[in-house]
Amino acid sequence: MTMPSMTAFALSGVPLVQPGDDLITILKSALEQSQEQLADGDILVVSSKIISKSENRFVDLRTVEPSPAAIELAQKTNKEPELVEVILQESKSVSRAAPGVLVVEHRLGFVSANAGIDHSNIEDSDHRVLLLPLDPDASAAKLRQRIMDELGVTVGIIVSDTHGRPFRRGNVGVAIGIAGLPAIVDLRGGVDLFGRVLVASIQGYADLIASTAHLLCGEANEGRPLVVIRGLDVPSGEGLGADMNRDPASDLYR
Amino acid sequence: MTMPSMTAFALSGVPLVQPGDDLITILKSALEQSQEQLADGDILVVSSKIISKSENRFVDLRTVEPSPAAIELAQKTNKEPELVEVILQESKSVSRAAPGVLVVEHRLGFVSANAGIDHSNIEDSDHRVLLLPLDPDASAAKLRQRIMDELGVTVGIIVSDTHGRPFRRGNVGVAIGIAGLPAIVDLRGGVDLFGRVLVASIQGYADLIASTAHLLCGEANEGRPLVVIRGLDVPSGEGLGADMNRDPASDLYR
Ligand SMILES: Nc1nc2c(ncn2[C@@H]2O[C@H](COP(=O)(O)OP(=O)(O)O)[C@@H](O)[C@H]2O)c(=O)[nH]1
Ligand SMILES: Nc1nc2c(ncn2[C@@H]2O[C@H](COP(=O)(O)OP(=O)(O)O)[C@@H](O)[C@H]2O)c(=O)[nH]1
Ligand SMILES: [Mn+2]
Ligand SMILES: [Mn+2]
Ligand SMILES: [Mn+2]
Ligand SMILES: [Mn+2]
Repeated sequence: MTMPSMTAFALSGVPLVQPGDDLITILKSALEQSQEQLADGDILVVSSKIISKSENRFVDLRTVEPSPAAIELAQKTNKEPELVEVILQESKSVSRAAPGVLVVEHRLGFVSANAGIDHSNIEDSDHRVLLLPLDPDASAAKLRQRIMDELGVTVGIIVSDTHGRPFRRGNVGVAIGIAGLPAIVDLRGGVDLFGRVLVASIQGYADLIASTAHLLCGEANEGRPLVVIRGLDVPSGEGLGADMNRDPASDLYR
Repeated sequence: MTMPSMTAFALSGVPLVQPGDDLITILKSALEQSQEQLADGDILVVSSKIISKSENRFVDLRTVEPSPAAIELAQKTNKEPELVEVILQESKSVSRAAPGVLVVEHRLGFVSANAGIDHSNIEDSDHRVLLLPLDPDASAAKLRQRIMDELGVTVGIIVSDTHGRPFRRGNVGVAIGIAGLPAIVDLRGGVDLFGRVLVASIQGYADLIASTAHLLCGEANEGRPLVVIRGLDVPSGEGLGADMNRDPASDLYR
């Protein structure tokens, strides 16, 4: 019998990313310093934070004019009105607001605390925040294409972020941008060990990979925004971040 | 710089588990057939299903007498009244009920569809279902102790199950029983790359590992209920499955 297996490693040698930095240049240099190469079939998990930094998605809160709605919500959540204003601008709707908590539906369709905006791992975080990448799928696709062109290998890319979740304590990794692999893998119609047809088996495939990477990249001062996952028998398909969002109409927890 | 990495592999040679089977015997034989050994620091992820089977947690639905409450809920959810009765017996409360959906708070404290009870990968699934293990933490601790005694190695154990989730499509792996490693890892009070103190960083560590294993064990006829995770720098601590449950009172989505 064959034994399915995988390996995962975080690249070292990634600098503090600056606005305008070219991520393929950073990737190449990190691969070199790590004495590693990418191979066909690898999945590269990229922390959204360094994409945001390279895209200069910083907002200086001192330049933000909070709306009356933001001021009201800021009171309810004990958050800065300027931060709440930026969160609302990045969101379609508010899901839950309570002291210390502001969960929204992000403009990209997923539900997350503070629209994925945070102060951590950025410079001047006393008055600046960093928004999520403008279009994480596009960033993933672009990086994938440049890896093909410049390194000659075909990889999958996941742009990851850290999410909390209802019911369960602790953050996990999620995929907010995807290129070159499926987002979800629908096993329905397949059979179980006894030939019974599966009716509920849809795997959150890209999120599983993002959570795997999360074990290595962490969410503090590890300095490891690039993780390579190798050896997975990746099902075919081309997913997008939005494929992971439940249809709000059929979501019983909005 | 050191490059953090891990490997994960699914053991082959696991039989169809039967009531009364001794899991350490099954593990030893699978290790032998896989030509693998466990090592200190490994984490062994065990699918809850084979623990349930060994514990004979089968219920023959033909022997179940549905209560009036179960009959009513069965109508609302389009589920068999006998199945709903068993789900209610395994639960503390109903979280959401809709056509095709019954989400409950399990007696073990987590929130899951159908109390984790399903028909898949079991024999005679036309009239039988399988409940989750009676006490997944105790099963994990027992297996861990026997691995120490009989194989001479100190490993962590996670008993995993497959959960759906609000907001996001696709199932992920979760830890419902834990021995020899932390459930969550609280990074609060640590600092980010720029020395800012982290205020929201609690990692769902055991769930991250369960999701990693899920990429290899799957949830269909793969026949891979035993996955080894190797090489992680596991933080110290001894968690329990219940550590992963959010306090219902502070959960905005119950
Ligand atoms: N080398 C490097 N690592 C970074 C940078 N920004 C964040 N990281 C690391 O990337 C990982 C994820 O960081 P986090 O702030 O949680 O990013 P997010 O999950 O994408 O929002 C952690 O290991 C951070 O230390 C950077 O500019 N350079
Ligand atoms: N070898 C073997 N594999 C099993 C058995 N029962 C389930 N599996 C496998 O264990 C993995 C997880 O199965 P699943 O039914 O999703 O278990 P759960 O997530 O613990 O409820 C899949 O690879 C199944 O094929 C068994 O009795 N023997
Ligand atoms: Mn983030
Ligand atoms: Mn993060
Ligand atoms: Mn299950
Ligand atoms: Mn499963």
